[in-house]
Amino acid sequence: MAIVERSDESVIGQRADASAPHEELSTLLAPEMDAVNAVIKTRMASEHAPRIPQVTAHLIEAGGKRIRPLLTLAAARLCGHDGDQHIKLAAAVEFIHTATLLHDDVVDESNQRRGRPTANLLWDNKSSILVGDYLLARAFTLMVETGSLRVLDILSAASATIAEGEVLQLTAAQDLATDEPVYLKIVRGKTAALFSAATEVGGVVARAPEEQIDALRDYGDALGISFQMVDDLLDYWGSDATGKNVGDDFRERKLTLPVIKAVAKANAEERAFWARTIEKGDQREGDLNQALALLNKHNALRDTRAEALRWSETAKTALTRLPADPIRDLLGDIADFVVARVS
Amino acid sequence: MAIVERSDESVIGQRADASAPHEELSTLLAPEMDAVNAVIKTRMASEHAPRIPQVTAHLIEAGGKRIRPLLTLAAARLCGHDGDQHIKLAAAVEFIHTATLLHDDVVDESNQRRGRPTANLLWDNKSSILVGDYLLARAFTLMVETGSLRVLDILSAASATIAEGEVLQLTAAQDLATDEPVYLKIVRGKTAALFSAATEVGGVVARAPEEQIDALRDYGDALGISFQMVDDLLDYWGSDATGKNVGDDFRERKLTLPVIKAVAKANAEERAFWARTIEKGDQREGDLNQALALLNKHNALRDTRAEALRWSETAKTALTRLPADPIRDLLGDIADFVVARVS
Repeated sequence: MAIVERSDESVIGQRADASAPHEELSTLLAPEMDAVNAVIKTRMASEHAPRIPQVTAHLIEAGGKRIRPLLTLAAARLCGHDGDQHIKLAAAVEFIHTATLLHDDVVDESNQRRGRPTANLLWDNKSSILVGDYLLARAFTLMVETGSLRVLDILSAASATIAEGEVLQLTAAQDLATDEPVYLKIVRGKTAALFSAATEVGGVVARAPEEQIDALRDYGDALGISFQMVDDLLDYWGSDATGKNVGDDFRERKLTLPVIKAVAKANAEERAFWARTIEKGDQREGDLNQALALLNKHNALRDTRAEALRWSETAKTALTRLPADPIRDLLGDIADFVVARVS
Repeated sequence: MAIVERSDESVIGQRADASAPHEELSTLLAPEMDAVNAVIKTRMASEHAPRIPQVTAHLIEAGGKRIRPLLTLAAARLCGHDGDQHIKLAAAVEFIHTATLLHDDVVDESNQRRGRPTANLLWDNKSSILVGDYLLARAFTLMVETGSLRVLDILSAASATIAEGEVLQLTAAQDLATDEPVYLKIVRGKTAALFSAATEVGGVVARAPEEQIDALRDYGDALGISFQMVDDLLDYWGSDATGKNVGDDFRERKLTLPVIKAVAKANAEERAFWARTIEKGDQREGDLNQALALLNKHNALRDTRAEALRWSETAKTALTRLPADPIRDLLGDIADFVVARVS
């Protein structure tokens, strides 16, 4: 299975069908992806502090699918870009993503990512924080080299949205008052902001017409939201492919869309159950089964799936505003592929 | 006493003589500093995550001297800037500094800054990391609004140097092999990189001639190095004004310039002392006095002071390449003021 998850991208990736659409896209754009990887390797170096490339390499060479830079390359090519500005831009997008992962793992106190120990475990939190800062700075330098202030504007705004979404998650995650609009903001920060920026800047660098740039942004946004909803769903639904156990989010007291939907329809007794298990974190034997029963009772999983499918459709609809092209077809296939995990 | 220290800026500031040169400069540029403060207040807001302005306000309203944005304003005005681009730029510089402080306090596990509990203590490490990321992103957005790619280039490079210096300090701080060139790199990252970028971008936004921009960069670099050396010296020399205790760096096993100089001249027995106390952290009653005796024996404090004075002179020499102006005089006074603490 495919694509892009902050927590287990490569675990998913390793099981990917060779004909998965992002794999096809990667093959189609192989020379450019190679160029992106070369830029990443050069720019993650540090003349003075060898720990920087060590930490970065641990994460960046761990077999992630590089879906975000792939989206940037695809968007630029789809809009007819024939220069090489998109290469640096794609590398910048991957650096921002990697910086986010490094900081995420400190914030979440994670020990594992992509089936390997996290950098914060192998080195320490300090290194993860500072190397993340370094990569973010290097990302901005790469963007400057593309000569486009608009690109810098889009990606600095996306970086702010990412951090804002994470802060929001920090304060909202265990608060039963969290509703669907707040969830959507968190998801946009967590996943969709960088997806939509990645596709949008591809169009910008290609000097595409504004309506195409809008379409690319909408595609990335909807794809990111759809992906995250599927991921939150699979946590309860279960899937061999994610490498995660059913109920991880429940045990970690994460207020994701299925639970938000069940809480919205809860009676007093059910509300007390969610308050105890999620807000207070007082979880006992049998609670996960009870949670699953409540999710089913209120059709929360079914409704979450329906929303994920709607966002996938929104992503594909956005593509109709872009030129017909094999790349466009593959981007559509990716939107299908994301939700195929719950079909 | 004056200026700018990552660790105790306001403690120093509170005791400042009203005629301190940075205070005079601040008075001279009061309307512009007010405008900078207004931009800071607006841009630290977050529509969705109220914790962001809470954490930021805790730090940014704690009475720091705003020396870095002041340097940006001064440099721009000295070079004849008559627009208002320097206001946003100065706010961006302060955001970068604030982001650095937030991350520093997590990395150093600090509990106090400017005489108040740190954000990581009042909230948590997670909030400090993420709010720092948010401010950094907002800083880049502000820079984009100045419309100058060169400004973005300078400040993204400075951000990379800051992070690199911190990583270097992480790995070198307790390694007796750390020599003066490594120390200088750390100091440039820790203090001088943002000082020199702050002054340089002031010249850039004013569209000053290249030789003036070079001079501003050299001034900020030398001022930052001088300041940090004085600070490292005062840790052993002692000063009522710093609010720090003699020997804090020793107890925290920081390999600063005085110790590096003493280690360079150490005999075998002395080397063993430094290895035990700094590298291994095995410190006993009387060790600080022994350290001070060794620093004096090898004239390490005297030589550190001489170097700080040389860098202060370098800063003043750089100013001779800039237009004669009351602002230039005050910048020269600031360079004197920094080393006046050890005169």
